[in-house]
Amino acid sequence: MPGQIQFSEEGAIALVTLSYPGKLNAMARAMWRELRAVFHRIQAESRWRCVVVRGEDGAFCAGGDISEYPSFRFDDSQLRDFHETDVWGGLAAMLDCDVPIVAQIEGACMGAGMEIASCCDIRIAGESAKFGAPIARLGFPMAPREAQLVARAAGELTVREMLLEAAVLPASEMKARGFLGRVVPDHEVAREAMASAQRVAALGPNAARLNKQALRALVQRREPHDPYRYAGSAEHREGVTAFLEKRKPAF
Amino acid sequence: MPGQIQFSEEGAIALVTLSYPGKLNAMARAMWRELRAVFHRIQAESRWRCVVVRGEDGAFCAGGDISEYPSFRFDDSQLRDFHETDVWGGLAAMLDCDVPIVAQIEGACMGAGMEIASCCDIRIAGESAKFGAPIARLGFPMAPREAQLVARAAGELTVREMLLEAAVLPASEMKARGFLGRVVPDHEVAREAMASAQRVAALGPNAARLNKQALRALVQRREPHDPYRYAGSAEHREGVTAFLEKRKPAF
Amino acid sequence: MPGQIQFSEEGAIALVTLSYPGKLNAMARAMWRELRAVFHRIQAESRWRCVVVRGEDGAFCAGGDISEYPSFRFDDSQLRDFHETDVWGGLAAMLDCDVPIVAQIEGACMGAGMEIASCCDIRIAGESAKFGAPIARLGFPMAPREAQLVARAAGELTVREMLLEAAVLPASEMKARGFLGRVVPDHEVAREAMASAQRVAALGPNAARLNKQALRALVQRREPHDPYRYAGSAEHREGVTAFLEKRKPAF
Repeated sequence: MPGQIQFSEEGAIALVTLSYPGKLNAMARAMWRELRAVFHRIQAESRWRCVVVRGEDGAFCAGGDISEYPSFRFDDSQLRDFHETDVWGGLAAMLDCDVPIVAQIEGACMGAGMEIASCCDIRIAGESAKFGAPIARLGFPMAPREAQLVARAAGELTVREMLLEAAVLPASEMKARGFLGRVVPDHEVAREAMASAQRVAALGPNAARLNKQALRALVQRREPHDPYRYAGSAEHREGVTAFLEKRKPAF
Repeated sequence: MPGQIQFSEEGAIALVTLSYPGKLNAMARAMWRELRAVFHRIQAESRWRCVVVRGEDGAFCAGGDISEYPSFRFDDSQLRDFHETDVWGGLAAMLDCDVPIVAQIEGACMGAGMEIASCCDIRIAGESAKFGAPIARLGFPMAPREAQLVARAAGELTVREMLLEAAVLPASEMKARGFLGRVVPDHEVAREAMASAQRVAALGPNAARLNKQALRALVQRREPHDPYRYAGSAEHREGVTAFLEKRKPAF
Repeated sequence: MPGQIQFSEEGAIALVTLSYPGKLNAMARAMWRELRAVFHRIQAESRWRCVVVRGEDGAFCAGGDISEYPSFRFDDSQLRDFHETDVWGGLAAMLDCDVPIVAQIEGACMGAGMEIASCCDIRIAGESAKFGAPIARLGFPMAPREAQLVARAAGELTVREMLLEAAVLPASEMKARGFLGRVVPDHEVAREAMASAQRVAALGPNAARLNKQALRALVQRREPHDPYRYAGSAEHREGVTAFLEKRKPAF
């Protein structure tokens, strides 16, 4: 079975599953393109209120599919194309997605796994999950935009330890360093991620989209477009009115 | 009693108290304008060496005064005016204040409370304080500059959990996430905040102003103006001389 | 004995030692110039794979050499020259060094010590190490670029507590705040720093240089130069090939 990005749904929650059996869901080149397509699809439809990203069978993602590397990594322009078009294409589709994304992290979260997790809004991991990016063992660096993405999410000290020393850190340490919001027993990760997604899905969906746009603008150092146009929206009126009428809002 | 911003003083320490009895000091629209006026006044006088910001009666600030919202939130330009002129006017006056600001945080620190606390230099909270910005329950997002302010102070992961999942976090967690410098038993918060303010007030006041200008320049990505003009100042000479003479400086 | 920057080597690891006996290795003005020269030398040669920066005799660095201050601090242009040429010259040489730098922190890490440690990629400290920048006691601020450097590494809240309140924080707190990666018993700091340097030195040296360039570009908000030119390098081929052949790479 080749690796693939699986898509399924549960109500308004989209489930994106990294799947490469026998390779701890390492990202093959084609999977980056599928990741991009899946997130473009999610972004294009208004029905989704949350996305859960997870890996199959007890791992999140162990990195890239190294067996493919000799076919394209040793040529400058092919290497650039791999990182800038395929890998960044997938990551940028996640970063540009206005729907909140929950990372459900079990087992290995290495290299590409760290990059994908860094694109998520909420990160929940199991106690035995492991984090790192030991690609200096393979004699190459992280691509600049990818390193900068991970540095923003995990902190500069952590990304430097991972890249320069090949440090691999446990979930408890990644919680202490601010990369993870919650660490739970391994058998509760899936349940906790879904509970988080359901809490997100119950709130105003347009508010979520506008919040993500505002925070994205911070990273991109620009102003978000027309941020107060929601004033007269049904969601806004319903939320405020329901509060004042002491009832639950129906978003 | 309508909400108001109270001002008092204790030596060189200015005390700014958020007060809206019965509403956990929620910020009414007029209170944002008062907050701005108070900090403009503090900034304009050279006598202040530290400011303590606190809430009345065991709460810091529970958010905005939602009862006012139907009167202005549902119109684009009124909504913009509220956020960009009133709210940001108050927050910007705090951010532009060169006098060090200590946040004394008890009880609820939600929404507007998070924003006001994010403008403070030193943050001390009681063990039972609670932090969040669950406005997606009301069907609206945080305004972009406000979200970016909180993201800088509390970290992106935390602001995303607060805005997208309506997460409410205890003081211990906000300490672990780097938003709080100290968490103390509830009955010691006021004493610890005042002790902190007194330590600040005993140090060189012009040094504090220059330090705040330098750190503000980092956020605004510009150079501070003429940062070495203090070379011949009495404060500078006294500090260095007193050290070398092994005596306490008199600032 | 005047203060000096000592240089020695152990295989591919360069050892830079801050040394000012009797002054807890406070940085005299001449030491900043020596620090710059040492790091320019390390950067110019390709043989180094890691640098360990440490202080002599149980302290890292207690700050600046205050006894020199009356000779130049009270004049604007001499003060500017001290900070912008001498101090920043030394710090910039560290920041511009492509070889990974490990900070081995024992005892006092104050003022200039915080600045030097902030230029390191990996920070390891002993349990009894102390951190701060209480220069407001001396009636002067941290220079803007220096304050911004420390704020990036230690977080804004921490640098504000250090500068505005003269807070001195223990190693455990600096670990919790994300400035330190590891805190170990005092007698193990030297061994742990050398073990870290050896792990760094065993990995692909060009990968390390490219990673540091990419992360530096993030701070400087520019694109790194030609980041994929390593594609056909021997190091890259060896790393990937060795992995696929299930043997150790020889970098």
